[in-house]
Amino acid sequence: MRTRSSFYTSILSCLILIASAVAQAQDPLPSWNAGPAKQAILNFVKVTTDPASPNFVPPGQRIATFDQDGTTWVEHPMYTQFVFAFERVAELAPQHPEWKTTQPFQTVLSGDKAALTKLTMKDVETIMIATHTGMTVDQFHGIVKDWLAKAMDKRWDRPYTGLTYQPMLEAMQYLRANGYKTYIVTGGGQDFVRVYAEQVYGVPPEQVIGSALETQYTYSKQGEGVLMRPPKLLLNDNFSGKPEDIYLFTGRHSKAAFGNSTGDQQMLEYTQAGGGAPLMMIVLHDDAQREYAYGPAQGLPDTKVGAFTQALYDEAKSKGWFVISMKNDWKRIFAWEK
Amino acid sequence: MRTRSSFYTSILSCLILIASAVAQAQDPLPSWNAGPAKQAILNFVKVTTDPASPNFVPPGQRIATFDQDGTTWVEHPMYTQFVFAFERVAELAPQHPEWKTTQPFQTVLSGDKAALTKLTMKDVETIMIATHTGMTVDQFHGIVKDWLAKAMDKRWDRPYTGLTYQPMLEAMQYLRANGYKTYIVTGGGQDFVRVYAEQVYGVPPEQVIGSALETQYTYSKQGEGVLMRPPKLLLNDNFSGKPEDIYLFTGRHSKAAFGNSTGDQQMLEYTQAGGGAPLMMIVLHDDAQREYAYGPAQGLPDTKVGAFTQALYDEAKSKGWFVISMKNDWKRIFAWEK
Repeated sequence: MRTRSSFYTSILSCLILIASAVAQAQDPLPSWNAGPAKQAILNFVKVTTDPASPNFVPPGQRIATFDQDGTTWVEHPMYTQFVFAFERVAELAPQHPEWKTTQPFQTVLSGDKAALTKLTMKDVETIMIATHTGMTVDQFHGIVKDWLAKAMDKRWDRPYTGLTYQPMLEAMQYLRANGYKTYIVTGGGQDFVRVYAEQVYGVPPEQVIGSALETQYTYSKQGEGVLMRPPKLLLNDNFSGKPEDIYLFTGRHSKAAFGNSTGDQQMLEYTQAGGGAPLMMIVLHDDAQREYAYGPAQGLPDTKVGAFTQALYDEAKSKGWFVISMKNDWKRIFAWEK
Repeated sequence: MRTRSSFYTSILSCLILIASAVAQAQDPLPSWNAGPAKQAILNFVKVTTDPASPNFVPPGQRIATFDQDGTTWVEHPMYTQFVFAFERVAELAPQHPEWKTTQPFQTVLSGDKAALTKLTMKDVETIMIATHTGMTVDQFHGIVKDWLAKAMDKRWDRPYTGLTYQPMLEAMQYLRANGYKTYIVTGGGQDFVRVYAEQVYGVPPEQVIGSALETQYTYSKQGEGVLMRPPKLLLNDNFSGKPEDIYLFTGRHSKAAFGNSTGDQQMLEYTQAGGGAPLMMIVLHDDAQREYAYGPAQGLPDTKVGAFTQALYDEAKSKGWFVISMKNDWKRIFAWEK
């Protein structure tokens, strides 16, 4: 007669075999083509999660950071948050008749695309203040949420939250399945991205780090505590701001960092400085047909906050960072692609 | 013959019964005396984690925030971080012969306790700059770690990390066991507290929010990215800074907040403003024998950053916050007490 104990052992062995077979059969990165970029992600997870590896990272220290615009979703022809700001100007215009004859609002209201591209940083700042400040944090959350529910990207006729890159969503999911906390680290507004990050990326608000206003604690007419959004920038989460803010929020080094521009350069450098077997990747936009082509792939001028310059490309190559070619490394770019 | 399936069902039922009996037999707050404070914590967990409760809080939103000094560990006769700063002055003095004749260093080096209590905020700031800035973040971490390993509190002849309040550790543990993320939200230095928070409180560095310096990304002689600590305060995590910084770090309302002074008042108010069935508690230091007695319990002047004033006591009473009497509500204060 078989003992109960040997019976359990057999069941357990079967379950382990089945689980292992399922895991091998399922490609965790199905939207990635085979190649060095895909292999780099698989290798990174292998060497940092195997307790026998010299580069094993204990679970609590498993942090992966992702830039957003151009890294996890489309940033062309204009940052989504700028589209929000410009459309918000149009929405608020009836309460500001003076905007019809005041710059930069007049340009925004004209809808003249050529003129829009000539706005200075100071102009953009004026527009951001007019559309992003002077309300409570809860009110701002509601305004962004309402806008996201109805705004549509013109090229693909889809909500902006539908323009995330499927291969990056898979990389985030795969890292999380292996004990990594995934963070969005964005030059964009922290409070803007937090509205949809959980639903869109599976990243809870406390793991969204971004440019942030100071808030001001005060009291409502009913005497309740409220947080207002005054027009004062606290964190500029671009360039050096990225490693500084990752440290501020987590006290840790990221072990894997994904970016696409000079705005992410310092984040990748500081990830590498943490030692071990870190992973640094940058997305090259070289697919004009399925998405856009800009940066060193096209020799195009790049007027964004951060740009994928030839110097960044050279730094990546010399330091062993992986350049992700959207054209070659990604089997599909969007979840809804055929 | 009993089927295998009914056999498993029986085992499962047994296990559930045993687990339930164990849970009921074990008091999750053994260092708390029965009373309104202990009951408030038990009730809070019950009504916010029962899916059938109208005040149910989904797991992702379960956030509990704890002030540190005077709330989770001893703050008298001086904040531990000030002790660190003063002892650090003595350690650095050989490299600064001018300190022997320069204030406020001369006072610190004299060891004259009466004179120390007369230092102004400006003096303390000068000392903090001299001891907390001008090195990399990793160097500072090492300095604090080394100090904590050898520094001893005079009254109890124990390391400072041994002066945590056992009832508060139990409350944190109980909240975590029920899906709450526990945060330290301290007017003290974020980077100081992060050195020991995981080991002492079970709180990882990314859940420590505190006063923080700006950091400055630059390059080592070897060309590697490093973060320096310049003498510039970014976050003053006291008073209004507490709800502001909780929002900055988490984008959420805390559902339970624990403090002990006016420095925590706004954190408790904003927790209450979040609605639902939040828990607000303040620790009253009324046990001169086992710890210290100060604040409204003794009518003592309180020279700390935040004080437990009569006005705070009155606000607590009028708003339904729970005042924890260390003398009456805590069966024991320290884990090592007999």
